[in-house]
Amino acid sequence: MAKRNIVVTESEETWIEDRRVEIVERKGIGHPDSLCDGIAERISVEYTRWCMENLGAPLHHNFDKVQLVAGDTDVDYGFGQLLSPIRIQIAGRGTSTAPDGRKVPMDAIAIDATKAHIRETMKYLDPDKHCVIDCYAGHGSSELMHAVHEITANDTSFGVAHWPHSGLEHAVYETCQYINYDLLNQFPIGEDVKVMGARMNGEIILTCAIPFISTQIKDAKEYIEIKGAVSQAVQTYADKLDKRPVAVHVNTADADGTRNVFLTLTGTSAECGDDGSVGRGNRVTGVIAPFRSASLEAAAGKNPISHVGKLYNVLGLLAAKDIVESIPTVREAQVYILSQIGHPLDQPLVATASIQTRNGKMTEQVKSDVEAVLDRHLSDMIGLRDKLKKMEVTLY
Amino acid sequence: MAKRNIVVTESEETWIEDRRVEIVERKGIGHPDSLCDGIAERISVEYTRWCMENLGAPLHHNFDKVQLVAGDTDVDYGFGQLLSPIRIQIAGRGTSTAPDGRKVPMDAIAIDATKAHIRETMKYLDPDKHCVIDCYAGHGSSELMHAVHEITANDTSFGVAHWPHSGLEHAVYETCQYINYDLLNQFPIGEDVKVMGARMNGEIILTCAIPFISTQIKDAKEYIEIKGAVSQAVQTYADKLDKRPVAVHVNTADADGTRNVFLTLTGTSAECGDDGSVGRGNRVTGVIAPFRSASLEAAAGKNPISHVGKLYNVLGLLAAKDIVESIPTVREAQVYILSQIGHPLDQPLVATASIQTRNGKMTEQVKSDVEAVLDRHLSDMIGLRDKLKKMEVTLY
Amino acid sequence: MAKRNIVVTESEETWIEDRRVEIVERKGIGHPDSLCDGIAERISVEYTRWCMENLGAPLHHNFDKVQLVAGDTDVDYGFGQLLSPIRIQIAGRGTSTAPDGRKVPMDAIAIDATKAHIRETMKYLDPDKHCVIDCYAGHGSSELMHAVHEITANDTSFGVAHWPHSGLEHAVYETCQYINYDLLNQFPIGEDVKVMGARMNGEIILTCAIPFISTQIKDAKEYIEIKGAVSQAVQTYADKLDKRPVAVHVNTADADGTRNVFLTLTGTSAECGDDGSVGRGNRVTGVIAPFRSASLEAAAGKNPISHVGKLYNVLGLLAAKDIVESIPTVREAQVYILSQIGHPLDQPLVATASIQTRNGKMTEQVKSDVEAVLDRHLSDMIGLRDKLKKMEVTLY
Amino acid sequence: MAKRNIVVTESEETWIEDRRVEIVERKGIGHPDSLCDGIAERISVEYTRWCMENLGAPLHHNFDKVQLVAGDTDVDYGFGQLLSPIRIQIAGRGTSTAPDGRKVPMDAIAIDATKAHIRETMKYLDPDKHCVIDCYAGHGSSELMHAVHEITANDTSFGVAHWPHSGLEHAVYETCQYINYDLLNQFPIGEDVKVMGARMNGEIILTCAIPFISTQIKDAKEYIEIKGAVSQAVQTYADKLDKRPVAVHVNTADADGTRNVFLTLTGTSAECGDDGSVGRGNRVTGVIAPFRSASLEAAAGKNPISHVGKLYNVLGLLAAKDIVESIPTVREAQVYILSQIGHPLDQPLVATASIQTRNGKMTEQVKSDVEAVLDRHLSDMIGLRDKLKKMEVTLY
Repeated sequence: MAKRNIVVTESEETWIEDRRVEIVERKGIGHPDSLCDGIAERISVEYTRWCMENLGAPLHHNFDKVQLVAGDTDVDYGFGQLLSPIRIQIAGRGTSTAPDGRKVPMDAIAIDATKAHIRETMKYLDPDKHCVIDCYAGHGSSELMHAVHEITANDTSFGVAHWPHSGLEHAVYETCQYINYDLLNQFPIGEDVKVMGARMNGEIILTCAIPFISTQIKDAKEYIEIKGAVSQAVQTYADKLDKRPVAVHVNTADADGTRNVFLTLTGTSAECGDDGSVGRGNRVTGVIAPFRSASLEAAAGKNPISHVGKLYNVLGLLAAKDIVESIPTVREAQVYILSQIGHPLDQPLVATASIQTRNGKMTEQVKSDVEAVLDRHLSDMIGLRDKLKKMEVTLY
Repeated sequence: MAKRNIVVTESEETWIEDRRVEIVERKGIGHPDSLCDGIAERISVEYTRWCMENLGAPLHHNFDKVQLVAGDTDVDYGFGQLLSPIRIQIAGRGTSTAPDGRKVPMDAIAIDATKAHIRETMKYLDPDKHCVIDCYAGHGSSELMHAVHEITANDTSFGVAHWPHSGLEHAVYETCQYINYDLLNQFPIGEDVKVMGARMNGEIILTCAIPFISTQIKDAKEYIEIKGAVSQAVQTYADKLDKRPVAVHVNTADADGTRNVFLTLTGTSAECGDDGSVGRGNRVTGVIAPFRSASLEAAAGKNPISHVGKLYNVLGLLAAKDIVESIPTVREAQVYILSQIGHPLDQPLVATASIQTRNGKMTEQVKSDVEAVLDRHLSDMIGLRDKLKKMEVTLY
Repeated sequence: MAKRNIVVTESEETWIEDRRVEIVERKGIGHPDSLCDGIAERISVEYTRWCMENLGAPLHHNFDKVQLVAGDTDVDYGFGQLLSPIRIQIAGRGTSTAPDGRKVPMDAIAIDATKAHIRETMKYLDPDKHCVIDCYAGHGSSELMHAVHEITANDTSFGVAHWPHSGLEHAVYETCQYINYDLLNQFPIGEDVKVMGARMNGEIILTCAIPFISTQIKDAKEYIEIKGAVSQAVQTYADKLDKRPVAVHVNTADADGTRNVFLTLTGTSAECGDDGSVGRGNRVTGVIAPFRSASLEAAAGKNPISHVGKLYNVLGLLAAKDIVESIPTVREAQVYILSQIGHPLDQPLVATASIQTRNGKMTEQVKSDVEAVLDRHLSDMIGLRDKLKKMEVTLY
Repeated sequence: MAKRNIVVTESEETWIEDRRVEIVERKGIGHPDSLCDGIAERISVEYTRWCMENLGAPLHHNFDKVQLVAGDTDVDYGFGQLLSPIRIQIAGRGTSTAPDGRKVPMDAIAIDATKAHIRETMKYLDPDKHCVIDCYAGHGSSELMHAVHEITANDTSFGVAHWPHSGLEHAVYETCQYINYDLLNQFPIGEDVKVMGARMNGEIILTCAIPFISTQIKDAKEYIEIKGAVSQAVQTYADKLDKRPVAVHVNTADADGTRNVFLTLTGTSAECGDDGSVGRGNRVTGVIAPFRSASLEAAAGKNPISHVGKLYNVLGLLAAKDIVESIPTVREAQVYILSQIGHPLDQPLVATASIQTRNGKMTEQVKSDVEAVLDRHLSDMIGLRDKLKKMEVTLY
């Protein structure tokens, strides 16, 4: 096994917390783009599961294209009806005939996986009742079909991730998760949450968009009351996330007292007006952080065997986490990995870890420790694939 | 007019040219993702043109979702036939009835604009012969319909751009354009070019994927010859772009001598196996540069009146260019603009210019000059819209 | 009220039972064409019901175009899996905005009605699991939107029906119904039954196609056994239907002992290979009888207010039944009704009853009695519409 | 070769001309249903042509399902614009991989054939500009794939046709063809013509619907003038077709002087409001004649090798024509042919010719002559297929 080309350096950038301004966004699990990411990934997972169980081996695929065309609804206080369903157009490539001639129920798997994701993610959105889901996926080119059997990079591409979250990233991410997984059980709200965070002048501002369930709110007065309670709950929660002052704003575009507030039937704006697409939302770090290096590759939906755009982004994140957790002097790590098409996945062209040490001093010991962590991650592509197959890693 | 909140600072980052490693990618104009970007933008332009000419005012819209589902072809040396067409699924929102009740031919405009873009971009791909183009766009929510009449931000969002290109970005961008606009006229090649650039150890490596037109290449021997000539031309061109050594590789995945080389009927892999989507390709700078700050918002297809995700990204680029060109001591500028939903577009929450000066010293004069340029750009949203309407700015 | 133009004549044709050869066919309720008819009609019924309940009046519509694109399955003895779903493409015209501006959830009604029909008709076919159902219906032209408020004919068209069933028609119809509604509960068979009947040389031959449920039949031997039992049951049942000898053949295209027998996962060939369409199956008499006069208009899916193609065919059948049941000397009646576009529905251009009397003699009394029955039916268009709205009349 | 089971009888029915009332309809070549028939058949022809040229043999297929979903237009005197295109959804079954593994461009053939048919049939409707054409055709079940190689009936089915046209059928058919092929060149009218004929009390009434081209008629006055001229031309033509008095009515639903007249942009109501489907229009005799025996099978689009629903209907018509033309004493022939699934096509279960002799007397000589003609037709299935492949027979 050739020695891997790993470069470890002290970060050349100002630490994120020392920068004057920072902007971070997270799209909640019910945002149309997040839904598409989740669906794409679930299709990949279920397709792979089917292949493993029935064929004993995975087949090449790439389901990283899913388009959600918004439906149409008629909502008002105490009322909501679906006029036209959400259309979910699954694209991508897969193999519908195994090498031994067996039929692979690709379309059926894709559609069922889409429904499973929606059912397990959304409280009010019903995939059978509110959605029309169809699969337009085609067959991969014969060239691409071979690649999956080898463990080589399918493309010249790269992955990038950092860890830990900055204070603002933490505030944005945790607040969004809190709304999605905790507040949702307390109030008549949906999953299509968006938290936009800004840090300026030592303060954090969190602007939250939160959909309310129209049928459970009887009038404008009640809406204002519930929104007030929701805002208070978010404020209380967010206050504990950071030592800096945090200001929370909820649904700032509302015209309170009128119907022009954020009311939905199903908890997502996908029902009326907002389309979605894979790879347009959160990065593997769970946030969109424009001041950070990021890959534009969509991790979701790609095959977990050979696709660099998926594997290296996730590997970067896991390695960065491991570096920070296992090496006390490191306060932040950013990992870049560049593939060479056709070369073994565990032999990237170069893997770079850019390290923020707590004291600003990079020692040979730290370098060596970081390199060892990164090398260990690169040497275990099998383990990484397994994590992906088991959905143990979130990608958005 | 309130004073704008503009912050000008010396950059906190190491200059891109001083970093050890850099990775940059450009997807050519015929790449499935670039095609989707181009189509989305052209729809927005033509829809706006129709509204201006027929209604005297623009209408709200958002055509930033276009999904390309790859077709299927059968190609070989000297041969190529379409088996199944490329499906282009236009989504997004628009207004199909003007406030005065007049019908707006939204679907027809969208489909015609798609064809126009393909015809003007692609030499071998025929939108009527090789594509099925349908429009699934719906009607915007009534709430969103109002926003376009005011000049306020439609969302809490941000734009980011830098100028100039780094040496590597320059090499990648210009090489890709050279292949797309110059070599295309000399050799039987298509527009679905991808140039992946890496800079390490003082060297630049350009890995180019270039589709060849199957019907114009009679056998494997001729393919090798022509690919050799193309590689040589690219090498010669790229050598002049940078003082550092440049290594050019073309179609590294080819199995020369076999059919497993990059042959296409139409000049794009969209014909067989590669899907596309808006916002998954190049940023407004023309490249994908993971070491740079970037917005994940798709600029293409969004309405040019109120959509921050479009306007602020483009404004950032134009302002950065203007700063660098008009202030000699600035060698690089990065501009960030953060909107406030519901506030006037020319009054962002904050606009930040992060400046690399040639001598590393930020003076009050430079600050003042930069601020003036940025202020001027922010004050001319009308001019910016006009540029977008006339397609004078490239977005990808 | 003007006197109606009703003509009653002794039939000019040889009585059907006196003809040498007769051919009759019935497509069972799970045949792809019957499914489309049933879906189209159910959409019309549910759309009308919604309008009555919410708007107090019906709206114009015409949902008589539904196309079923067959899916793909992989079946074998003891095994069955869906590879690709059945696509049901609903077309037609309706009104999605009521005159008072209220939104009519046309797409949602159409899709839900389709599922309701499948659920209530099919034992093994699950609309959510096996089908992708989408609605492409558009808006009626403004011209057509008016007609529904008046009680005038929407077209120059005609309706035709006869009663009673001939002996062969009776045998075909009842046998098909017996398999669909009785045998289905005793054997692992599906609803996509087709019975082709021929009468020649004083004998009746019934050729039946009956789908078997693959997952419930473990091997070729069991298939042969069950098919034998099914054939025997059909033979026993059919023997009682007619005094003439009846020969029953089931699944004559089977290659017994191999996999090439009529196995299905869902009980209909729509799952794999057989498409369906409205108006291509049984006439309102429940059979396809090429020796009889018939209208080619599809009754299913048309609006029950003004559409001649629906109303006059059903009215013809009900009037013929009433004539035969109430006038003892009549052994067969055939009713033809021709509309005049724009004229009141109860004032057709001409309504003709062609009568077979038992003794071959048409008297003035019989003429007068028949005319009275026909006149009564024509005078009660409201009652006819109610029957249609309540689904008290079968149309196929 | 076994003797064929051919039965020749004197007709048991009153001659059509002796009946009191007769109704006949023809849908012109631009009617949405006729367009679907024409498209379906052209796909079958082109698919077969491709297979013959490239594989040397035909492949099984069945393209007899095509659904046209109406578009939307905005028309007025002197004005017309497409708002939303006509969607043509091709379904059916074919083979996309030849037995030797070669790819058959089924989707591309189907789409191209659709465009070719529209281009060659319609003067104003442009398939690229006004239509979105997509192919949803799947693969035939393996069982059905075999049948085409043998010359056996694919189904238990029947064909029926008569010749000659009655006087009314003649008037309806020729008038419709005259408008479609002659008047079209003289006036600004389109192909979506419908002629409904009724014969009562010794008179013929022809009610014609004729679309006018909106962009070529400047106002209501001109419309009335042109419609008057068109009506006059039709009247003059129709007067010569029959000795009985003929009354011609054109566009009786028009509200003259308003916009509510039959104006179209493209010459067919498919552009706005009227959907179409295969098999819902004219029979192989070119008319819809409810008083005649007819098959409900759609002849268009079915494979010309083994599909009884196509072959026997056409054979019936050609044989009836031949009988009438070659045997002077025969004034009308009706031919019925019933297949046996799995048996040779040229050995139907029974072929019946029901003959109207001029003098009402069936002789052994006539029987023998008729039988000989029918036998000759049945013995030349190859010739029949060739006629269909060359589009020498019209099917609707």
